[in-house]
Amino acid sequence: MALLFFGNADRVAEWLPELRRAMPDRDIRVWPDAGDLSEIRYSLGFAPPEGVLASLPNLRAIFSTGAGVDGTLRDPTVPADVPIVRMVEQGLTEGMTEYVVMHVLAWHRDLWTYAGMQAAGEWRKLDQTLARDRRVGVMGLGVLGEDAARMLAALRFDVAGWSRTAKEIPGVACFAGEEGLGPFLARTEILVCLLPLTAQTRGIMDRGLLSRLPRGAVLVNVARGQHLVEEDLVALLDEGHLAGATLDVFREEPLPEAHPFWRHPKVRTTPHIASITLAPSASREVARQIARFEAGEPLENVVDRARGY
Amino acid sequence: MALLFFGNADRVAEWLPELRRAMPDRDIRVWPDAGDLSEIRYSLGFAPPEGVLASLPNLRAIFSTGAGVDGTLRDPTVPADVPIVRMVEQGLTEGMTEYVVMHVLAWHRDLWTYAGMQAAGEWRKLDQTLARDRRVGVMGLGVLGEDAARMLAALRFDVAGWSRTAKEIPGVACFAGEEGLGPFLARTEILVCLLPLTAQTRGIMDRGLLSRLPRGAVLVNVARGQHLVEEDLVALLDEGHLAGATLDVFREEPLPEAHPFWRHPKVRTTPHIASITLAPSASREVARQIARFEAGEPLENVVDRARGY
Repeated sequence: MALLFFGNADRVAEWLPELRRAMPDRDIRVWPDAGDLSEIRYSLGFAPPEGVLASLPNLRAIFSTGAGVDGTLRDPTVPADVPIVRMVEQGLTEGMTEYVVMHVLAWHRDLWTYAGMQAAGEWRKLDQTLARDRRVGVMGLGVLGEDAARMLAALRFDVAGWSRTAKEIPGVACFAGEEGLGPFLARTEILVCLLPLTAQTRGIMDRGLLSRLPRGAVLVNVARGQHLVEEDLVALLDEGHLAGATLDVFREEPLPEAHPFWRHPKVRTTPHIASITLAPSASREVARQIARFEAGEPLENVVDRARGY
Repeated sequence: MALLFFGNADRVAEWLPELRRAMPDRDIRVWPDAGDLSEIRYSLGFAPPEGVLASLPNLRAIFSTGAGVDGTLRDPTVPADVPIVRMVEQGLTEGMTEYVVMHVLAWHRDLWTYAGMQAAGEWRKLDQTLARDRRVGVMGLGVLGEDAARMLAALRFDVAGWSRTAKEIPGVACFAGEEGLGPFLARTEILVCLLPLTAQTRGIMDRGLLSRLPRGAVLVNVARGQHLVEEDLVALLDEGHLAGATLDVFREEPLPEAHPFWRHPKVRTTPHIASITLAPSASREVARQIARFEAGEPLENVVDRARGY
């Protein structure tokens, strides 16, 4: 009934004590010291090496340390009949909402322009708009997207959301599907991407989509770097169609030294820290799910392989 | 029954059309073209020139364009029997809360450190704390302070408030008076000042008070520059007791060219733009109050001269 953890040395140092605290009676092993593979019932990690999950004959559930499971699904050999569980954890959700609210406010209230004015010793007041007159759009209304959209609405922004299938969120104008995408984009001044990464969403933010935002719009991408066609964003910023972007995720991470995002005057980058899974609460969540599962109850937050999230 | 407006040319250009729209039948005059002074019933402005209000024999109410009335009260000749009305206007409140939330989040989530790391081409993740584990303190629980405190609590910060007289705000730990100040400061990691400027609060944020904050605390001052002893803040930042400050207001505005705040690495400045009174909604508010008053109802938001706010 062992659990097998995947992670580099830093991650092991952070997670192992927390997993042991949350599940004191569980046999917890760390890849590659997996011992007898037939004893492994559960795996936990973001991106187990290709083929390893398929080599575990008695695997019953695959837990992701991340809200996204693209790290797991990129391995084509992952057994089709073992449920994959994405991480839903209050700390992960709250941290993401903090980051999104902060960066939406920063663009809304010209924080970066004022920072530049301070550096230049310039005292000048810019025109000001209230949040209630600022249209923010959240793409992706899963656990993270919904929480961010609700909080932005609480802050009095004029918030819309877009998702593949129709949702209802109080205070948020919800658009859905291909036919909802056009009107959603046309009304969005600040676009927040919180989509899952799937075959359908890979590269979704390309010149075609971003051009449908009104001139002067801004992008906040906190989902995955692969959602964005980075060259198209740079071109639209340079042409002046888009006014700025906050990017926490990139096609290649760490962001390569020579990448234009490091120095682009309209781009704000952070090193994939919008939200991090906190080992203590995440370990308790895995323990809770395993206890439910072994008591005969269904797992929660199981990924639908066909949709990819 | 005329209203006399005080303001420079820019302000007149902004306000006069809005005042005329909000009160189409009112005789609206602009200082110094006041005409027959005995016809003036109402004044509106932030800081009318000393002695002018005292020269209006039939003045019935003095409206401030700002949430603070320190601009009016610094004129010792202001007639004692004419009510002074501070501006309470939803746009002013909302704009202030946006600014406070943004700058509290910026310190909470190391926005400035990450901006420096981008400029240096450095990819590194810092330790992260959730808002629920971050203790924010709001000094001053008037209309602006209460709204900011409630919104910070909605964002899941651990929020306390301090005011001269005891208040109760759901989700906010309220401290009051001299005996409440010590415990309030001792638990505050991010201090937000939204006090009114009075004889009691002038210079309140000096070395004595700021030293009672825990080491590494941060200040966000959005009230008045005169609340802060600026030299004491610089000393505490340089000694490392305080980690940073966001300042929107200054003893002298515009901030003088040679002032150390412009270039201090731990200080973020903005040019008194945390919140601005919006002429359209503020004009409607003045029209509403005058209509009530002329129908025999009492004025709202009248200043208590003894407390100064």
